[in-house]
Amino acid sequence: MLVNGTHYRTVWLKGSSVMMIDQPLIPHQFKIHECRNHKETAYAISSMIIRGAGAIGAAAGYGIAQAALEAPGDAFSHYIEDAVKTIKNTRPTAQNLFYAVERVYDAIVSAENPEEAGKKAVCEAELIADEDAASCKKIGELGASLIKNEYRILTHCNAGWLAFVDWGSALSPVYTAKRAGKKVFVWVDETRPRCQGARLTAWELKEEEIEYAVIADNASGYFMNKGEVDIVIVGSDRIAANGDVANKIGTYEKAVIANENGIPFYVAAPRSTIDWNCLSGQHIPIEERDENEVLGIIGRDENNQVRRVFITPKGIKARNPAFDVTPSRYITGIITEKGIVKPDELQKIK
Amino acid sequence: MLVNGTHYRTVWLKGSSVMMIDQPLIPHQFKIHECRNHKETAYAISSMIIRGAGAIGAAAGYGIAQAALEAPGDAFSHYIEDAVKTIKNTRPTAQNLFYAVERVYDAIVSAENPEEAGKKAVCEAELIADEDAASCKKIGELGASLIKNEYRILTHCNAGWLAFVDWGSALSPVYTAKRAGKKVFVWVDETRPRCQGARLTAWELKEEEIEYAVIADNASGYFMNKGEVDIVIVGSDRIAANGDVANKIGTYEKAVIANENGIPFYVAAPRSTIDWNCLSGQHIPIEERDENEVLGIIGRDENNQVRRVFITPKGIKARNPAFDVTPSRYITGIITEKGIVKPDELQKIK
Repeated sequence: MLVNGTHYRTVWLKGSSVMMIDQPLIPHQFKIHECRNHKETAYAISSMIIRGAGAIGAAAGYGIAQAALEAPGDAFSHYIEDAVKTIKNTRPTAQNLFYAVERVYDAIVSAENPEEAGKKAVCEAELIADEDAASCKKIGELGASLIKNEYRILTHCNAGWLAFVDWGSALSPVYTAKRAGKKVFVWVDETRPRCQGARLTAWELKEEEIEYAVIADNASGYFMNKGEVDIVIVGSDRIAANGDVANKIGTYEKAVIANENGIPFYVAAPRSTIDWNCLSGQHIPIEERDENEVLGIIGRDENNQVRRVFITPKGIKARNPAFDVTPSRYITGIITEKGIVKPDELQKIK
Repeated sequence: MLVNGTHYRTVWLKGSSVMMIDQPLIPHQFKIHECRNHKETAYAISSMIIRGAGAIGAAAGYGIAQAALEAPGDAFSHYIEDAVKTIKNTRPTAQNLFYAVERVYDAIVSAENPEEAGKKAVCEAELIADEDAASCKKIGELGASLIKNEYRILTHCNAGWLAFVDWGSALSPVYTAKRAGKKVFVWVDETRPRCQGARLTAWELKEEEIEYAVIADNASGYFMNKGEVDIVIVGSDRIAANGDVANKIGTYEKAVIANENGIPFYVAAPRSTIDWNCLSGQHIPIEERDENEVLGIIGRDENNQVRRVFITPKGIKARNPAFDVTPSRYITGIITEKGIVKPDELQKIK
């Protein structure tokens, strides 16, 4: 998508460096972060310099490719195995990460020598990124059919293009509907604790000149109950084979409230998000992150300096699960690049 | 309740000044704010220097008493009528405010001269504050019966003693249960946008040495669904005659999720919160506040300076409804000083 008129992806390979948009700085600054080796890439994933299901997946793929380029000839396999462990240990929930690591790893082990392995790994990582962008574009085309003129869409967190390589999942149908001339409005859940809605989704929508309003996460039920939401579309970090969906903490609440108010609730995600080996949502590992994410917040002060403030004094305790699982019974449909399916019909697009 | 060993109420009259704990400064500073006339008291209410259903009610009563002490003899009635308008216009949702204004106004008009009016007004305002404290203490005694040993209670916003004159509504049963020797744990919803949970409830619980954890509002559904919440208790700003309850934005979501997970959902409030003239929740006016409350947040920086930061750049749009209405069907019971009743049996305690 465009940033000040220039087309960007969220993550790309430049020589042996993984380049990425520095997401914690958005919307206050737009800066490209360089990871010179796979360990720096792993750190960028775990510290959420890059975040979002598809973007994590592509970065992880590139990270393994970096490892293949870095690995010493005399300890090649050992180095690759270590890199796989390092990258897999960054974030436990997003399926795209494991999907991408496996694919690039398979490309490496299919090669006959380290040099060929490096080439194959880079090709495979590029392919994963390209597929992510193409899938998201297709999700937009298919999903746009659900968005009627003057629809008010509620979304949670950021499943826009910043969360993928390009286009995004939940926001892609919104972008496509807008470009097709439909008038749309988006309710943007702030999405505490890391405020991906207020920071990233609002920024994306503003850049695309789409009408929106940021709301406290607490307010989405209010607007749903008042009849001011026509459809809810969210992304996903992992979808179990039975259609249960892991996504940003708070998604479960939005799904139950939408259900209670008869509002269609859709999940948009490329098929790489589906974990066919995971039978149901209860088997999806849920990451619990540092309590300081809940106790503090990053913003700009009166001098436009970006800084963290703490809402509470030192010594206050918090808990910080980063994701939750929405049971399939609350989900109207899953929008993938192969079609829109009911959660209990996922097998149709396997 | 105690602050560093000294007993405080949230609001009291000192001569012709209304004194109050400055709540936006908590938990970073503990300071007493003085309102020297009824207009300063009105401003303290509208700007939320004092907030919380019962505390607003008591402050409003004191404000009208101040007006009676200030009013010039030759334009007494006119001055009082103006003061009533000024104070009623501060916050539209909290019933306690209108209840207190009416009571003190009635005391004033029953007097034979301005001097007697001033005395009667002060007496009535003090009575309202005393009744609030006594009702909240009783709510604690009655409500504590619902809290079993080792219960994990979820609460939203702050309906602790800072929200009333003393004791609080939703937290009063928790304090009573704790003092009776029960082991209790409280899940504290952060409560964006103004973070009354993270700032005020966590501070109160810490002072009372009660175990708790602050969570993002998005996380309460996660813990309810995991079976880690035994009971939800919240306060209320206005209860309609049919048992519908207005409370801090987000309460509706918590009630629906509790219901969905079979968790008892209680509202604790003195009877002064009940608006018998309001037939149902749809008639309760919902205040919409400044969008900057959603876009910004107040906290301490790395040097312990209290400052506001903005999560978003200038020009980002937001909406900020401050309350929502929970239909009575989601409410297990209402804890009042006259007993715990089902929402459709409110008339029993009229």
